[in-house]
Amino acid sequence: MSSCVDKASHRLDEFALIERYFKDLTPQAGVCLGIGDDAAIVECSADSQLVIATDTLLESVHFPADTNAYDIGRRALCVNLSDLAAMGAKPRWFTLALSLPSRLATEAWFDSLSRGLADIAASAGCALVGGDTTRGPLSVTLTLLGEVPVAQALRRDGAMAGDHIYVTGTLGDGAAALHVLKNEPKRTQQSRLLEHFYAPKPRVSEGIQLRGIASACIDISDGLLADLAHICKLSRVGAEIQRAQLPVHPELRRDFLQQHQHWALYGGDDYQLCFTVPPDRQPHVEKLISAQRLQATAIGTITASKGMDLLDIDGGCEPIGMAEHTLGYNHFE
Amino acid sequence: MSSCVDKASHRLDEFALIERYFKDLTPQAGVCLGIGDDAAIVECSADSQLVIATDTLLESVHFPADTNAYDIGRRALCVNLSDLAAMGAKPRWFTLALSLPSRLATEAWFDSLSRGLADIAASAGCALVGGDTTRGPLSVTLTLLGEVPVAQALRRDGAMAGDHIYVTGTLGDGAAALHVLKNEPKRTQQSRLLEHFYAPKPRVSEGIQLRGIASACIDISDGLLADLAHICKLSRVGAEIQRAQLPVHPELRRDFLQQHQHWALYGGDDYQLCFTVPPDRQPHVEKLISAQRLQATAIGTITASKGMDLLDIDGGCEPIGMAEHTLGYNHFE
Repeated sequence: MSSCVDKASHRLDEFALIERYFKDLTPQAGVCLGIGDDAAIVECSADSQLVIATDTLLESVHFPADTNAYDIGRRALCVNLSDLAAMGAKPRWFTLALSLPSRLATEAWFDSLSRGLADIAASAGCALVGGDTTRGPLSVTLTLLGEVPVAQALRRDGAMAGDHIYVTGTLGDGAAALHVLKNEPKRTQQSRLLEHFYAPKPRVSEGIQLRGIASACIDISDGLLADLAHICKLSRVGAEIQRAQLPVHPELRRDFLQQHQHWALYGGDDYQLCFTVPPDRQPHVEKLISAQRLQATAIGTITASKGMDLLDIDGGCEPIGMAEHTLGYNHFE
Repeated sequence: MSSCVDKASHRLDEFALIERYFKDLTPQAGVCLGIGDDAAIVECSADSQLVIATDTLLESVHFPADTNAYDIGRRALCVNLSDLAAMGAKPRWFTLALSLPSRLATEAWFDSLSRGLADIAASAGCALVGGDTTRGPLSVTLTLLGEVPVAQALRRDGAMAGDHIYVTGTLGDGAAALHVLKNEPKRTQQSRLLEHFYAPKPRVSEGIQLRGIASACIDISDGLLADLAHICKLSRVGAEIQRAQLPVHPELRRDFLQQHQHWALYGGDDYQLCFTVPPDRQPHVEKLISAQRLQATAIGTITASKGMDLLDIDGGCEPIGMAEHTLGYNHFE
């Protein structure tokens, strides 16, 4: 087996690289022609619509500078899969556009990146079908393609006054993980948080299960309130959130007593789904939850008045502005 | 109309930005849900396969550091469309992943980029359906989706001994443009070359026309010999090229007497199609050329022996190695 990397010059043979680390890396269902031509050819299912999402992860912006390639691969794919999950789509294919500096262009690095991608791709059932590698600052851009039966996609614009608001899983873990990474990266007892950061479980099966049930859905990447505000704006409604109902992991409540509620509301990187359910479909959702077929929590109600309110148990009410700059974060800050 | 950019902080409102510069920028055929949700939804044509290509353009690597945003937009889309052209695909949709430094985050820059994308997208008939913007070193990654009738895509692996080798347009213009940009950027009489660099005409209609005719096809991005070598390897054949037949623009021959032939063989960035035609279909291709419905030139023949030879008029023969490092360029050099 010839080497893909000239050790003296760090010069990579892009074709050997593709052949060894990226070709047929993943399940190849529906792939008529994979990596190796000018473009890939795939076959869409009949009666399906195609769902397309793209996301870039930059070193030091979306992951710490010393992140190993395995975790970069996992995080990049998980974050992108979360967008497909929020549409109720079944992941099928993805492309990888990779820019990396010479110092990282080693066989070990590529091997690690490809294993990270392969692990997540195998569990999500999607195939790497193409890509591009360039020398430059480290960045990973994935474009994901999924399928959804015609007119069954979950969108942001379907919430109605009276709908119940739910979130999957627990909130605040993303912000807590970021806090740990920035301030106490050696705190190994926070391995649950670090695993959440590098491989946030994309809620793909939950999204598929919510087809025909949820009236609107979004994935929480910028923070619950910031992302719920998108649903409210596009649906032309408002929302009331019950502060006491916010699902927070018991370890997060214990370890970050002061911060956990703020993180649950404003923290990014949770990658849970926030979705709305019309009253007549709520019993069905509650049944799924009781049967442990769906891990989700009701946290509030969609209102006709266009604003968001945080409600306390004691009847207190804190109105929340809907402007993006007051909520969550913006990559251009 | 509110501002997308805070002049003091250069802080961009990503949502206002999308709304103003990227939403509904382009023809929206087949788009069920465009920019603004977690992902886009599009509808594939019946009896079609989906063709997927992705390419990254980095500042100072794929375009000069002072390139205006209009030209960056045009070049990024043209280069990616060229990959679809090489498959015989009809372009439909694309996503944009943009990373840019604060100094460029101005409304004028975004306006210029979006006009460049829109101009090319309108002529190619494809729609911008999604994207992602991050702050970082300037890079533009596009993922293009096209369609081709089932089993009619042009691939690299179908060439057979005896097939005729053709190229569209003229060769060497890409390398000449790069030479002018590097050495004499003010040489305004080379406007044809600069236009070729920033908006290389993707051979989309030629690719579509060659469905059912060409036995193999590739776009020339790394240089004729480097790209023809890909066809040869995947098809397990060799090639003979008639040096005197290489199509070179008369101005290139006149202005670059010493370099033009080397550039035509080894220069990158031509974005012409190199395709092979079985003998029984050659009369059809020649008829298209005579009728001026296809601008292409026969330059040689596919051989059973696995090697490439350059033939001279006087009977001389120069054997060419097939290893990538001897041909064209590799982005990791």
